[in-house]
Amino acid sequence: MTASAPTSARLSTSPEELAAAVERAQTAFEQARGTDLATRAGWLESIAAALEAEAEPLVDAGCRETHLGPERLRGELRRTVFQLRLLALEVRAGEHLDATVDHEDPDWGMGPRPDLRRVNVPLGVVGVFGASNFPFAFSVMGGDTASALAAGCAVVHKGHDGHPELAALTARAVLHGLEESGAPAGLFALVTGRQAGVALVEHPLVKAVGFTGSTAGGRALLDRIATRPEPIPFFGELGGINAVFVTPRAWDARRSEILAGYATSFTVGMGQFCTKPGLLFVPSGDGEGVRDRLAGALEGFRPAPLLTERLHEGYTEAVRSVAERDGVGVLLEGSFGEPPQPTVLATTGEAVRRDPEILRREMFGPASIVVQYRDEAELAELAGLLEGQLTTGIHAEAGDDVDELSIRLAEISGRVLWNGWPTGVTVSYAQHHGGPYPASTSASTSVGTAAIRRFLRPVAFQSWPHERLPEPLRDDNPWRVPQRVDGSWRRPGHDGQNGVQE
Amino acid sequence: MTASAPTSARLSTSPEELAAAVERAQTAFEQARGTDLATRAGWLESIAAALEAEAEPLVDAGCRETHLGPERLRGELRRTVFQLRLLALEVRAGEHLDATVDHEDPDWGMGPRPDLRRVNVPLGVVGVFGASNFPFAFSVMGGDTASALAAGCAVVHKGHDGHPELAALTARAVLHGLEESGAPAGLFALVTGRQAGVALVEHPLVKAVGFTGSTAGGRALLDRIATRPEPIPFFGELGGINAVFVTPRAWDARRSEILAGYATSFTVGMGQFCTKPGLLFVPSGDGEGVRDRLAGALEGFRPAPLLTERLHEGYTEAVRSVAERDGVGVLLEGSFGEPPQPTVLATTGEAVRRDPEILRREMFGPASIVVQYRDEAELAELAGLLEGQLTTGIHAEAGDDVDELSIRLAEISGRVLWNGWPTGVTVSYAQHHGGPYPASTSASTSVGTAAIRRFLRPVAFQSWPHERLPEPLRDDNPWRVPQRVDGSWRRPGHDGQNGVQE
Repeated sequence: MTASAPTSARLSTSPEELAAAVERAQTAFEQARGTDLATRAGWLESIAAALEAEAEPLVDAGCRETHLGPERLRGELRRTVFQLRLLALEVRAGEHLDATVDHEDPDWGMGPRPDLRRVNVPLGVVGVFGASNFPFAFSVMGGDTASALAAGCAVVHKGHDGHPELAALTARAVLHGLEESGAPAGLFALVTGRQAGVALVEHPLVKAVGFTGSTAGGRALLDRIATRPEPIPFFGELGGINAVFVTPRAWDARRSEILAGYATSFTVGMGQFCTKPGLLFVPSGDGEGVRDRLAGALEGFRPAPLLTERLHEGYTEAVRSVAERDGVGVLLEGSFGEPPQPTVLATTGEAVRRDPEILRREMFGPASIVVQYRDEAELAELAGLLEGQLTTGIHAEAGDDVDELSIRLAEISGRVLWNGWPTGVTVSYAQHHGGPYPASTSASTSVGTAAIRRFLRPVAFQSWPHERLPEPLRDDNPWRVPQRVDGSWRRPGHDGQNGVQE
Repeated sequence: MTASAPTSARLSTSPEELAAAVERAQTAFEQARGTDLATRAGWLESIAAALEAEAEPLVDAGCRETHLGPERLRGELRRTVFQLRLLALEVRAGEHLDATVDHEDPDWGMGPRPDLRRVNVPLGVVGVFGASNFPFAFSVMGGDTASALAAGCAVVHKGHDGHPELAALTARAVLHGLEESGAPAGLFALVTGRQAGVALVEHPLVKAVGFTGSTAGGRALLDRIATRPEPIPFFGELGGINAVFVTPRAWDARRSEILAGYATSFTVGMGQFCTKPGLLFVPSGDGEGVRDRLAGALEGFRPAPLLTERLHEGYTEAVRSVAERDGVGVLLEGSFGEPPQPTVLATTGEAVRRDPEILRREMFGPASIVVQYRDEAELAELAGLLEGQLTTGIHAEAGDDVDELSIRLAEISGRVLWNGWPTGVTVSYAQHHGGPYPASTSASTSVGTAAIRRFLRPVAFQSWPHERLPEPLRDDNPWRVPQRVDGSWRRPGHDGQNGVQE
């Protein structure tokens, strides 16, 4: 069902309704295809305004369905609205079109070159799956939906069943924003239920899928997509372990501060972040001191229930199964009641070398593992035991030699941090929220302006009559987008002139 | 076996040898990782020089193994060498790094932004499969290998068994060029045999695969890759049908010229191009006239044997099976001897509407289908029956209304041509050689400077100490690459200053 009223939020979309939503999305996509950049940016801004106008009822619904609390939810909504406006700015700028013009050149080195021009066009209908842990930022109008709309795609969004009422309310605001700004009907639809999700990734008109969720869930969708007659890209952000390494000198210099930062970062949002630091590598010795400092840092910590019962069960099972492995002990005893108290496990470099699986199981909730190593020289080798990570981090002092470790971490990470904590993902031009598998299933990002690129593909026009070319490829550049002309970029200046550069 | 002497060219690489080649490639990749852009560009240029120095023996070997003839092979080698030099230029420019710098910003709209910088890094070892039909341009040192090396990857190349001696000789020149310019040993290796190809795509150190070949072969590799524990991108260029549409007015104005161009384009290289025009949509009527004109255009055509016996069999079978479908007749009777004479089949818009499979079977060799349509208004609908195409084309006159057809063609094509023929693919900035499945398996191109992007992934560095940042991300920009700084691109000017632009 496409969301029209929150009262229907708990009904599952039938196969016929799913097919109808995808077909309407395709029609809307085709109607929207020639839309100029400013108008399309206006649609995103109108959605942003509609979400802001509904902020209170949205946050209220989020509070009822998620235990996340009003402060966090308001911040997340602010982030979501900001993201829409930043993407709108990027759409206006036209960077994502990668407009490239090669004029005819009879003297081209390999033989005469025809006039050839390339521009990025949207893929079509995109299926997006919402996540439970960010009911705004990675849900109905989260990064995947926003960047797909920014690219010029239509979106059919499978809402997460952890917050059905919020999903339906958000969808209503989105539809209102789109309608207000004159976007074609059907450009966005919300569907619900597991069956609709499966039908969505299998629908022949769906040309890409965006997903934020567990490795197991993502892999299941990926494997299903692999059986489609027509392969399509699957942009899965599957979470991560987010290993953090502390050098001996940093440990000596500011152990308390590091442990306090760690305690805050792995418990914020009850550890239900894909960027939660799940591993902290520290020099061995002083286990009791570490425990006492962590206990102190978490004194007064007010736990909240986990997002869903299923997550709670999965969390409990994950922590217990890691704790049972050889060489793993409990450093800080937590609890698994509702709400759970944070748990810190402890292990050693020796143990994880014998059993690297200790390092590879995500515990989605307020738990983390402290890994004690003997010798700084081990660090790069220990990093080599990790699978792909959304983020990794180093805490070090100015003179530390961590070159080899840095190289290893860049090799397996989407983002590497220095003396910082991975929770908190800014939305900006340089952001990269992804990373080698199993952190994600592609080389792309699901956060930041670069996320738009995922939902585009290039088309080249050869010897095409000038007046029939898409606007971004014309010599007079009516949309005033950046163009790479015969190898050199030209960016229109603000004075209305086409600035020739390089 | 890594190629050291052409005498061993016919031996197949053993599983142990394959594993050793991949491991050496990984070591070389790691050794090469920090290499500056100018040095890396120099490696490509040294390979180009080595190929040029060996041009005569290479062309001779090509003549012995491919029937393509010295003129075509010399041209193809020139193209291959040009491509290496153009990619070297692009590497020097640093466009492919997409260096993006967001400085710390306490006033960023969604909350304080840390210093965050992103750069593209190479994926690692890439497996490349050579094609039979372009023994230089899409083979050992073809576009896939060249662009992967340009990206900073190492390459293990599975040579095509259609030209083993040429593959070994080319590999020897490549290794010589790399050695001469100081590249680490193992950065490139040639392996041979089907078994090695399978082991290559399954090897855990292989992080991407480039392939040019048949849809069936590509799909088989794609399905195999889907079973890997770690999914990796598969950049398959699987060929195409390349439909060309002629409007009634263009047909009236220049039928002879169009048919002459068509006859040349579908028979050049004995039709063994993935860009061969496989379908020509023309107004109905005058079947005899079309046949006579095609026969005239092909008078004096000197056929050559097809590239391999297997291709010959596949070609014969494909043409016969299409010819047997309901509503398909033979317009120009060819032959299937060795060498074969060109064949043109004929069908109608009505027949393909009933049986779209007529439009979807690639006949790899000198055959094509003329589709007669009744009414110009059918064209967009007929285009809608096509699967993804590498290229499509329109022959039209200035006043023709082909807007809807153009939109349909852009939707299914990698490249669309106006009043031209698809054979001949220039290597340039704007080139896009790809297209929706089954033309290719990704949104990327295998020809042109943009091909480099396939083999890169982004990494973001957060709050990283300036002196430890990769060179392309530093404020003083020692490599003088384009940087997007806080949203605005800066491209270093030729005067040695960092030009601020926008």
